[in-house]
Amino acid sequence: MKHEHLEDYVTSIPDFPEPGIIFRDITTILQDPDGFKMAVDGLIQLTDGLSYDGVVALEARGFIFGTPVAYADGTGFIPIRKKGKLPRKTISEKYALEYGEAEIEIHEDAIKKGGKYVIIDDLLATGGTVEAACHLVEKLGGEVVRICFVMELAGLKGREKLSRYDVRSLITYEGK
Amino acid sequence: MKHEHLEDYVTSIPDFPEPGIIFRDITTILQDPDGFKMAVDGLIQLTDGLSYDGVVALEARGFIFGTPVAYADGTGFIPIRKKGKLPRKTISEKYALEYGEAEIEIHEDAIKKGGKYVIIDDLLATGGTVEAACHLVEKLGGEVVRICFVMELAGLKGREKLSRYDVRSLITYEGK
Repeated sequence: MKHEHLEDYVTSIPDFPEPGIIFRDITTILQDPDGFKMAVDGLIQLTDGLSYDGVVALEARGFIFGTPVAYADGTGFIPIRKKGKLPRKTISEKYALEYGEAEIEIHEDAIKKGGKYVIIDDLLATGGTVEAACHLVEKLGGEVVRICFVMELAGLKGREKLSRYDVRSLITYEGK
Repeated sequence: MKHEHLEDYVTSIPDFPEPGIIFRDITTILQDPDGFKMAVDGLIQLTDGLSYDGVVALEARGFIFGTPVAYADGTGFIPIRKKGKLPRKTISEKYALEYGEAEIEIHEDAIKKGGKYVIIDDLLATGGTVEAACHLVEKLGGEVVRICFVMELAGLKGREKLSRYDVRSLITYEGK
């Protein structure tokens, strides 16, 4: 069934993974041809008018939305992956998780000095992972000119953590 | 620099990860706008003339090539992920690795009974993972009408393992 709004393709699972949390599942957007087209068209519109050199996206769900935008906009695609997955010379960045920390990497030669990059991801929650991705681009001399999300959980205040950047989302949920 | 052939964008790393093996790195295709466009255009051409219901791709590198094709062909996108990553009800399949085994999952409601699906992945090596992906689609009543790869390592004979299917590759390397 074709829906009018992208939100209508999202599956909301109440009290998952714990009471009081509503889990927002994007896979029901993807598997519906109309939903998937609406999401990617929306992200492409969020980059309208920008002149930029590449889309940067994070393993694994960021890859899903980042590559069609890079293809449509005629730019390159730069993957950021968990430590140990990229085959050539990388730089890495650690970031805090709820319990412990994680580390992500980018190829050293993937970012041009002075180049302009758009980061695309499925979900803005606390913003910790995407902030680490911004640092990787900047360490290599690139500029993050926009960050585009499919969904944003406004209650987690990721937008405050990313306040230095031009952040845009297709869907905003007020809660967590 | 713009190259004439997709192969020219692949980085070949000799004797990696062990002597006698040439590692074929696709990330240098991705980060180049011309290389990335050539790869995705090539995969879209490999699906020319097919009428089908969705692209199925495997985490994480399959996502990179699968989603632009789904978007261009106007179909849905169905992710297959490692065990424990998909949020709704799944079925799973185990497959052998060089040492031990691994398990992948697909959402039960992602495949339509009688639907036609194209599997897209970056690399055909032994074919074990993609064979497991075919089984998942078939268990749910779907048909795998074509399997498209960016690269194929012919020496590993993955094509024999997938002999029941219509297998196509953009680049074929004779070795392992």
